[in-house]
Amino acid sequence: METKFDFAKSLVWSAGAFLKAQMDQPFEIKEKTDFTDLVTDMDQKVQDFLMEAITEAYPSDCFLAEEGDVFQDIHEGNIWVIDPIDGTANFVAQKTDFAISVGYYENGVGQFGLIYDVMAEEMFYGGGAFEVFCNETPLPAFEERPYSQSLLAINPGMYRHNVAGVGDLASQFLGVRTYGSAALSASKVLAGQLYGYISNISPWDYGASKIMGDRLGYATVTLSGEEPSFKEREFIMMVPKTRLADIQKVLEI
Amino acid sequence: METKFDFAKSLVWSAGAFLKAQMDQPFEIKEKTDFTDLVTDMDQKVQDFLMEAITEAYPSDCFLAEEGDVFQDIHEGNIWVIDPIDGTANFVAQKTDFAISVGYYENGVGQFGLIYDVMAEEMFYGGGAFEVFCNETPLPAFEERPYSQSLLAINPGMYRHNVAGVGDLASQFLGVRTYGSAALSASKVLAGQLYGYISNISPWDYGASKIMGDRLGYATVTLSGEEPSFKEREFIMMVPKTRLADIQKVLEI
Repeated sequence: METKFDFAKSLVWSAGAFLKAQMDQPFEIKEKTDFTDLVTDMDQKVQDFLMEAITEAYPSDCFLAEEGDVFQDIHEGNIWVIDPIDGTANFVAQKTDFAISVGYYENGVGQFGLIYDVMAEEMFYGGGAFEVFCNETPLPAFEERPYSQSLLAINPGMYRHNVAGVGDLASQFLGVRTYGSAALSASKVLAGQLYGYISNISPWDYGASKIMGDRLGYATVTLSGEEPSFKEREFIMMVPKTRLADIQKVLEI
Repeated sequence: METKFDFAKSLVWSAGAFLKAQMDQPFEIKEKTDFTDLVTDMDQKVQDFLMEAITEAYPSDCFLAEEGDVFQDIHEGNIWVIDPIDGTANFVAQKTDFAISVGYYENGVGQFGLIYDVMAEEMFYGGGAFEVFCNETPLPAFEERPYSQSLLAINPGMYRHNVAGVGDLASQFLGVRTYGSAALSASKVLAGQLYGYISNISPWDYGASKIMGDRLGYATVTLSGEEPSFKEREFIMMVPKTRLADIQKVLEI
């Protein structure tokens, strides 16, 4: 597994370099479900870059990936869960604050995850049998602290409409943040900068962070505390395992 | 004025270095109006650091500063508007994403502003007679683009409760962001990464960004389009001057 993990690290760095080298060229933007749900040709190019390299190295491995609805069952075989550009709106409007997210599962069990904040050149990697790092720094497990001294990242629509009471939950916290990237929000949880993250997201959005979070004491579950389906977009929270029950008491589920 | 501007740049860099050098030491945290409104002894120390140096160099200059309610009238004399740590909640909970903000006014007219993102080591500076830069890069003036391809930063409370219709305004945009620092949100407007910023803020929160924004084509005004009072906390927006009337049409004011 160590060889595969090293392969993944170097591949994700390369994909980041590939993306960065093309940042200044014009790219095509298309709308998916509506004008807020964008995809660029760079999303597809980075996904192809990753999938081709993985297929060459590991021909029998399969994928669960954002672009083109590559929807393999997570519970069967070796599955790479890929979001080539997480935070596409930031990529388009800000040219920063987006990430490449790659999680690797064997028969449904997370082996390692990688989140690469391309512009900040920060790579979060580890989980499963591997310690979690941000670049050269090992990340400590969750440390208990009061809600009132901690920040929460929440999907803005869920927050505004108080979906499942997340707005009420947020009012117990020091503040709410919204970064526009599930992977980067999750990486701030891993780094201890956020207490948790709640959003309406798809498997590729949490595929990598779930594996790293699990090792550092965070549960990535539905609002009712179940394992994510890895099949569709759903309400997902990444919160300290020790506070899961407390948080569920506040939520209306 | 160029001498004073150079003095200010080097002073704000020094204040950032001073703050960074003490980041790993424990600091005292106090609540101001409630548990979400924090101040640390580092806020006071950085403010003292700035005010002492300015007073030594320019003994007759006055201040409008966050800590200790230093409230000089902006319209009379030479006034330095100072927020020693903008984004104190981020400083406490994240150890990143906070800024030192300094604006300099003469008889109410902005001469230059500086916003220093301490951990990212990014300094935004200029305005008045000076071109606006981020570190070594000159920043272009606002360029017209559709709301649907642009992001807006909004105070989370105003967004959740749709204060003055800001939630409805936001729904015309590609997305909403919340960073927890007025100065850093404004600096993303200056950098063209956000279309605008709307919040409930005090003079020291917009004192620097208003001067730089003015030079790059942004109005920093109340929701009804008036100049900020520089006297109290109020609803303030920083938006492209060319779109001010359009935006006011959507808002309920």
